[in-house]
Amino acid sequence: MDKMGELRRTHYAEDTVKVPFGETVTVAGFVSRTRDLGNLIFTDLRDNTGVLQLAFDQDTDPEVFRKAEQLKSETVIMAKSVLRDRSSKNKDIPTGDIELFVTDLRILNAPTEMLPFEIRDEVPVRDELSLKYRYLELRKPSMTRNLVMRHKIVKCTRDYFDSQHFLEIETPMLIKSTPEGARDYIVPSRVQPGHFYALPQSPQIYKQILMVAGYDRYMQIVRCFRDEDLRADRQPEFTQIDLEMSFADVDDVIAVNEGFLKKLFHDILGKDIQTPFRRMTWNDAMAKYGSDKPDLRFGLEITDLSETVKGCGFGVFASTVENGGSVCAINAEGLAEKLTRKEIDKLVEFVKTYKAKGIAFTRINADGTSSSSYEKFLSEDEAKAVREKMEAEAGDVILIIAGDRMETLTALGALRCQIARNFGLIEKGRFELLWVTDFPLFEYSEEEDRWVAMHHPFTAPRDEDMDKIVSDPGSCYAKAYDIVINGTEAGGGSIRISNPNVQQQMFEALGFTDESARSRFGFLMDAYKYGAPPHGGLAYGLDRLVMLLLELDTIRDVIAFPKVQNAGEPMSGCPDFVDQKQLEELHIKLDLDEE
Amino acid sequence: MDKMGELRRTHYAEDTVKVPFGETVTVAGFVSRTRDLGNLIFTDLRDNTGVLQLAFDQDTDPEVFRKAEQLKSETVIMAKSVLRDRSSKNKDIPTGDIELFVTDLRILNAPTEMLPFEIRDEVPVRDELSLKYRYLELRKPSMTRNLVMRHKIVKCTRDYFDSQHFLEIETPMLIKSTPEGARDYIVPSRVQPGHFYALPQSPQIYKQILMVAGYDRYMQIVRCFRDEDLRADRQPEFTQIDLEMSFADVDDVIAVNEGFLKKLFHDILGKDIQTPFRRMTWNDAMAKYGSDKPDLRFGLEITDLSETVKGCGFGVFASTVENGGSVCAINAEGLAEKLTRKEIDKLVEFVKTYKAKGIAFTRINADGTSSSSYEKFLSEDEAKAVREKMEAEAGDVILIIAGDRMETLTALGALRCQIARNFGLIEKGRFELLWVTDFPLFEYSEEEDRWVAMHHPFTAPRDEDMDKIVSDPGSCYAKAYDIVINGTEAGGGSIRISNPNVQQQMFEALGFTDESARSRFGFLMDAYKYGAPPHGGLAYGLDRLVMLLLELDTIRDVIAFPKVQNAGEPMSGCPDFVDQKQLEELHIKLDLDEE
Repeated sequence: MDKMGELRRTHYAEDTVKVPFGETVTVAGFVSRTRDLGNLIFTDLRDNTGVLQLAFDQDTDPEVFRKAEQLKSETVIMAKSVLRDRSSKNKDIPTGDIELFVTDLRILNAPTEMLPFEIRDEVPVRDELSLKYRYLELRKPSMTRNLVMRHKIVKCTRDYFDSQHFLEIETPMLIKSTPEGARDYIVPSRVQPGHFYALPQSPQIYKQILMVAGYDRYMQIVRCFRDEDLRADRQPEFTQIDLEMSFADVDDVIAVNEGFLKKLFHDILGKDIQTPFRRMTWNDAMAKYGSDKPDLRFGLEITDLSETVKGCGFGVFASTVENGGSVCAINAEGLAEKLTRKEIDKLVEFVKTYKAKGIAFTRINADGTSSSSYEKFLSEDEAKAVREKMEAEAGDVILIIAGDRMETLTALGALRCQIARNFGLIEKGRFELLWVTDFPLFEYSEEEDRWVAMHHPFTAPRDEDMDKIVSDPGSCYAKAYDIVINGTEAGGGSIRISNPNVQQQMFEALGFTDESARSRFGFLMDAYKYGAPPHGGLAYGLDRLVMLLLELDTIRDVIAFPKVQNAGEPMSGCPDFVDQKQLEELHIKLDLDEE
Repeated sequence: MDKMGELRRTHYAEDTVKVPFGETVTVAGFVSRTRDLGNLIFTDLRDNTGVLQLAFDQDTDPEVFRKAEQLKSETVIMAKSVLRDRSSKNKDIPTGDIELFVTDLRILNAPTEMLPFEIRDEVPVRDELSLKYRYLELRKPSMTRNLVMRHKIVKCTRDYFDSQHFLEIETPMLIKSTPEGARDYIVPSRVQPGHFYALPQSPQIYKQILMVAGYDRYMQIVRCFRDEDLRADRQPEFTQIDLEMSFADVDDVIAVNEGFLKKLFHDILGKDIQTPFRRMTWNDAMAKYGSDKPDLRFGLEITDLSETVKGCGFGVFASTVENGGSVCAINAEGLAEKLTRKEIDKLVEFVKTYKAKGIAFTRINADGTSSSSYEKFLSEDEAKAVREKMEAEAGDVILIIAGDRMETLTALGALRCQIARNFGLIEKGRFELLWVTDFPLFEYSEEEDRWVAMHHPFTAPRDEDMDKIVSDPGSCYAKAYDIVINGTEAGGGSIRISNPNVQQQMFEALGFTDESARSRFGFLMDAYKYGAPPHGGLAYGLDRLVMLLLELDTIRDVIAFPKVQNAGEPMSGCPDFVDQKQLEELHIKLDLDEE
């Protein structure tokens, strides 16, 4: 192998396009491919900004040429070269007009083993391999682009919040376990036998304490941990953009975050997003979109037909309404040809996973004829009333679900997304941002047989609901808000309770005894006794936000070293066994079932 | 309590000085103190930028005045006010020339309990209280200043490395345990019974893998964990500025970091630091300062007298040299009057904690008379030779230690710092930056009876030592460097081994079997088989760097929520017990000694 000696890179690939022909540059990187045509060699050099063509020909120094003959994919090289015009241009890459005539070539390293797969975006690789050899997967231009974009998003985020007087303050990672919601990861203490730290699910308590401490505006990009079973877009460790601000109410938090997202879309994607964003209450979102995170890139809004079909001739509809349920529908406009009987059958199977019993439909063909699963049971007027309510015209399909109101709305919410995906109603490159507000303060947990906090126990009720926390929890709404981008929750937050008495009522409504509230949150309750400014905040899932901005399908592609389904990481093989001695020092032993 | 209503802060305290008299501003914060003179009330309002005087007088709206009479320390208020000239100026604060005539006062919150201590920097508080009520301690202007400065330092750091093409890339926190050095914190896996994650002591392995993956320049400000017994400047969790760069040798890493520190000192302290910094090899640092992190803010360099006293009349000196030991000394210039016999006795006790047997001294008084503990055993020529070698003159004191070379140097190194501290030789506001280079590659561990890596096992040897790794480890020096500021190691790093064969030799020299090397570092060794660019990096202790820049004595003062001696955090009371159910889910049980 050669040494770099005094040679140093002068330019990254992307920067060479600004250099005039005839100038000397030194570039460094990996050989992505090389074509040896005998007396002509073309080698593509890849660095983390792009690809460049190196050319070796009859004018090349013979020693350099001999070295060039040895180049293979993924050889690590440095090349001092003269920039020149390229004879056969490549319009697909930014550097496609130029090539480098190499005067000094250093081979610095080279693979000693066959690569398990090619370093090309076009060549699909099994997950198993790509995760085990993550360092090779990460060499691919698409992965490099994702992580470079993530860097830029993070930089843009910090710059914005700094400009808005937010202070980056670090909160501890080894904290007290206060499980309310997801499972904590815990860490045994060596120094205090039998005691454990928890890893934070979020810095929630600490950021509130920073407001009590007068820090006014806090931000942190921070790792959080949740020991849950993995879903596609969840990781055991994930990163949060975490914010809190004092002397703020809902509109203040929303305004500062609209400023942030406007800048982010502008700086990262060159898109101009209009502010203020749309806002929708949780009740409206559920009624119209069957979801607390509606995707507004397409229509298919839900219409409540309960009043229309009350007492109609179709028993399923009539009895549902009579028993307090709802009959709701969407109009799949213009999809009559695509929504064949077979497709509708598939959708019936789909909505069954959302507890719906089935779908009643009317397809109105382009020629005005129609087929329907229920109109035969209705009078002509009744059928017409439904069509009119649904504003259904030739080419449309009415899809109706009947049952418990929330279940029906949720099923239709899922159905509209499924139809949009299946039939290509979602435009690439379109972004719809929405605030969902006024969430219920509580939801009833059948499992625990008590009210639980929909967000967390520190969320403030709306001013008008302040007096009903204990007496009528189910009717209280929260000063809570989620930012929804293209049907995904990118972040959420709330105004917090800053009055210790209100906090006490909240714990009471949640069924905490004084003792259990104190043992978990005593220090937070104490802190609030010394006077806190009104405050609230918000947290974004950074991984998800990056994924949304880059329009990717999985957060794995925006995380350098993601975990997989079993919460392990295949490259390093973690988690792993540890020495018995380590366990002894920590005063724990294994407790494995003999199965 | 009042509500904010539509009122919002328009200015922070520090920004009001730019506002013309007569203009209306709204400010918000805590009452730091209030003086009620009957028909005149002066109230100091504190926000995280400073303090402002609010004035209430005979012209104040009576309702506002009545509210002002209720204000107490730490009441949370918002005040709409007209800015005006202040009659009795306060030269101690930036806003001392102005006061605010309040037209609308909102009392938003107030302590419901007596404060355990006053929120004033001047009033000392017991550690116990200040840590338990950390949220109150954090309200103090000094703590606010420290955390605001930390924010600025972090911002400056990220901006610099971004401008130098470093990408911020996040590495995992739940990793594989590879203990070599300090103890890992470990985290039991629920999904994989009997398996554990470790929390990273540093992202070392991942940042090297990012270089293998072609990311070229990486940076991260990242939490790290070490389960060690706490010392004054150590925390179980601490924050690192972590860097790695490709196509780089020692001078490249040093140059990019000198650029960083120059900018940091300029932007944060307004100080112009000259580059390049001084450099010193580890051997020279040990010989001249008895430390691998010399404090260059004062002299007291070490002189080796072994040659001078060889065979002299004083048995202790002569036999030490004869037995292969060293006789070394410092000249405490001009300290003859201060270094009384009593003071020297204290220093003798001090050096004994560093294994030195004692101190031999000569004090040369201003009048030319002298007293010495050893000169009576020397001939006149021998005594003169020592004085000449030490360049000792009237007013100086020679302090000599004899013994094993390294122990002697280390004791003298500690002694010079102790003398500098005790006798005020260290100038406030002075910064001396130094690179210590060429550390030994290995050090011999008597405890483990083998060579261990002085930095870590991935550190590259100097080019000239490449062939001696296995055959003569003790004579190999490393491409390693520490940045030392005022006698404290602010950061350190090295060029890494990028050749798998050299890495293999390194593991061999460290006495790892192939199997144990593979089980710990197999994935890293595999990664290097696919060709890595030459690379190296550096990591700063951020907490320590902030402490150094702000000239504070303890890192606790630059961490919002520090841990204490028993690795606990008194405010929240962590670590704590967890539910038996949590342990069962994690397949572990407690293993407590019955003592």
